[in-house]
Amino acid sequence: MKLIAVAGCFSALAMWSQALAQDLPRANASRMEARIEQLSAFGANDDGGVDRVAYSEADIAARAWAMDLMRALDLENVRIDAGGNILATRPGTDPEAKPIMFGSHIDSVLGGGNYDGNVGVIAAFEAIDLLNEAAVETRSPLEVVIFSNEEGGLIGSLAMTGALKPETLEVMSDASVTIGEGTRKIGGDPDKLDNDIIEPDALKAFLEVHIEQGAILDEEDIDIGVVEGIVGIEWWDVTVTGVANHAGTTPMNRRSDALLAASKLVQAVNDIAVSTPGRHVATVGRIKALPGAPNVIPGEVVMSLEIRDLETDKMTAIYEQIERAAGAIADESGVDITFEHIDVASHPALTDERIRQTIAAAAETLGLSFMHMPSGAGHDAQDMARIAPTGMIFAPSVGGVSHSPKEFTAPQDMANAADVLLRTIITIDAEK
Amino acid sequence: MKLIAVAGCFSALAMWSQALAQDLPRANASRMEARIEQLSAFGANDDGGVDRVAYSEADIAARAWAMDLMRALDLENVRIDAGGNILATRPGTDPEAKPIMFGSHIDSVLGGGNYDGNVGVIAAFEAIDLLNEAAVETRSPLEVVIFSNEEGGLIGSLAMTGALKPETLEVMSDASVTIGEGTRKIGGDPDKLDNDIIEPDALKAFLEVHIEQGAILDEEDIDIGVVEGIVGIEWWDVTVTGVANHAGTTPMNRRSDALLAASKLVQAVNDIAVSTPGRHVATVGRIKALPGAPNVIPGEVVMSLEIRDLETDKMTAIYEQIERAAGAIADESGVDITFEHIDVASHPALTDERIRQTIAAAAETLGLSFMHMPSGAGHDAQDMARIAPTGMIFAPSVGGVSHSPKEFTAPQDMANAADVLLRTIITIDAEK
Repeated sequence: MKLIAVAGCFSALAMWSQALAQDLPRANASRMEARIEQLSAFGANDDGGVDRVAYSEADIAARAWAMDLMRALDLENVRIDAGGNILATRPGTDPEAKPIMFGSHIDSVLGGGNYDGNVGVIAAFEAIDLLNEAAVETRSPLEVVIFSNEEGGLIGSLAMTGALKPETLEVMSDASVTIGEGTRKIGGDPDKLDNDIIEPDALKAFLEVHIEQGAILDEEDIDIGVVEGIVGIEWWDVTVTGVANHAGTTPMNRRSDALLAASKLVQAVNDIAVSTPGRHVATVGRIKALPGAPNVIPGEVVMSLEIRDLETDKMTAIYEQIERAAGAIADESGVDITFEHIDVASHPALTDERIRQTIAAAAETLGLSFMHMPSGAGHDAQDMARIAPTGMIFAPSVGGVSHSPKEFTAPQDMANAADVLLRTIITIDAEK
Repeated sequence: MKLIAVAGCFSALAMWSQALAQDLPRANASRMEARIEQLSAFGANDDGGVDRVAYSEADIAARAWAMDLMRALDLENVRIDAGGNILATRPGTDPEAKPIMFGSHIDSVLGGGNYDGNVGVIAAFEAIDLLNEAAVETRSPLEVVIFSNEEGGLIGSLAMTGALKPETLEVMSDASVTIGEGTRKIGGDPDKLDNDIIEPDALKAFLEVHIEQGAILDEEDIDIGVVEGIVGIEWWDVTVTGVANHAGTTPMNRRSDALLAASKLVQAVNDIAVSTPGRHVATVGRIKALPGAPNVIPGEVVMSLEIRDLETDKMTAIYEQIERAAGAIADESGVDITFEHIDVASHPALTDERIRQTIAAAAETLGLSFMHMPSGAGHDAQDMARIAPTGMIFAPSVGGVSHSPKEFTAPQDMANAADVLLRTIITIDAEK
């Protein structure tokens, strides 16, 4: 009964926001593309992409450019928090209303492209531009965010949500400074992280636009991805132990070849992942055979196993199947196979059901095709989901390419995502 | 008709030598064991083995000990040739007779054991001792040889047979000197290698005793291995090219996983080697997946392929089967698979048929069990086989262990091999 009531309430809101949304101006694809191009100058490399790793000079210059633009957009209180995140406020009309935050990141991997992260920031700017142009006031204050060092481990969003481990500050970043030093270098203060933590329920919502890195939207020619959640990740080191021996003197039938058994396990991982219904993935990305000489039968193989899914139970079930298959391979091959769980796991982070519906409704209102989908990649939104109702909007990326100079999202696809973002903000703002 | 005549001639000789052989004294297992122990002191490590890599101080000290012992055995002209090989002569009675050479090596791998190589040298000394004790004179001069740097690439025997490439002298050895410098350090002269080359047909025979490194004699409880030849070795680098991609965002059915395809090929190599009749071996000992991160689907795998057999045609046939299987895997998996032949191949080196029969006859006379078998490992005998009729005698090694402090050959097994060596020398000496 309660669920039906909520749904009824939501429908009324949706109709209300639909009316408003249709009056809003549409995103300016050329302006967005021009801003992407301006941003691409910072850390540009010869391949047409950027080397704009967090804390580098290029990162610092791009951040200064972004803060100038925020001021030009009439945003207030343009600031850097203790975690190095850039924040800026568009005030609301209701002093009691919680803020709605949206944004993404502008740091890149080494050899990165011009769209990963950037599209989310430029879409946030576009939403502000459109609100300004239409002179629309919101009840909630709007907070535009540019997270620090997303590519180096979601550092800014971890800091903002109080989840950054102190020891992480000591880790060396790709800019050859520690994360603590880097945070200070970009204007943060690693000694005062506690001062700037956003408490659970302090935000009305968090929203992030990002390029979709799996080629699904591009290949299926769909405009908008409504992200159901960011998948959880589990890692194991798998060790296969046989007997190293002389490859010349040991007949085929007297071998205990760790690589032969490991090869069977690589196939079993794939077979199990493919034959189990669902959208989980399982990957062996790293393998090492010891001693690793052409003329020695491998006595030991160490390989990685990664499983991702939106549901922890599903990951466990896939893992258990793999473990059983490994047991059978070990018995049949005369080797030992052991699994060591690695503590870098991230738990699945589900987006907010109501925001998903709002995003879908906004896309529908705009006449855009959309699909619900998990995010297989990690995003700052997964940290924000722990403290706020969170939504993510995916824009198509050609070929699903990311972390590469070859990244490309068409201007109209960026504009569509900005339009959906704006209408989602307006709808959430209208909700009590 | 000719073959029958030769066989008849051989039988007469065998009967003649059998009579003589029965009068010879038997090898002294305790004396051999004592000499193994003395030799084990040079470069002894804490694991009970030796670090006696060629050109090291331990190698130089062991060589001095061996040369002193050669003099004590009344060998003449104890000398070091340009390639660093130690040679010593027991004169023969017939000034026209070609020498019979026998011996092995006393250098070890790092972390080596006390039997690999050493047993062959101590067996050669034992044969000289027995001839001296029985006051038997041979027609042929006997040359005892201790080859230099066997473990670093059969350097001494390559130099002696004129097959050492000049560029090999520049290669860094495990003793942190180049092979050229090391050769000089142990008393050789890399500038004068040409002076000491032994020409084809200059020797009546070459014989080598060695431990058997495949556990076959040990496990089947057989006293003597009559070596049919040293297998040829062919190496390839196999490259599997798929598409590297994000392990989180790329669904299972959109992957072109190089490691998955490589795993199928590892299995195909094993299946083909196992299902083809023969004593060939095929091994994948080294594998590398790129980029090699747990969260990236491998885009490229490079792995080694080694095939060994006594027959070149057999190796070719096995390789062609593997290449066909790779083609099928590539088609089915949507990857490319290429094979690059590596120029470190060694051709099969067959031992001399008549000497094999002589060794077998000697074992039989002595009441020892024996079997014909290939050597899967490389030995100086493979170089000597190019210039002289060559025979190899294998002694059992417990568990087939070699290149390890755990190497062990029982004293009686060493004595059996020395007895067979001596009787083989005597028989060859008696042959016209």
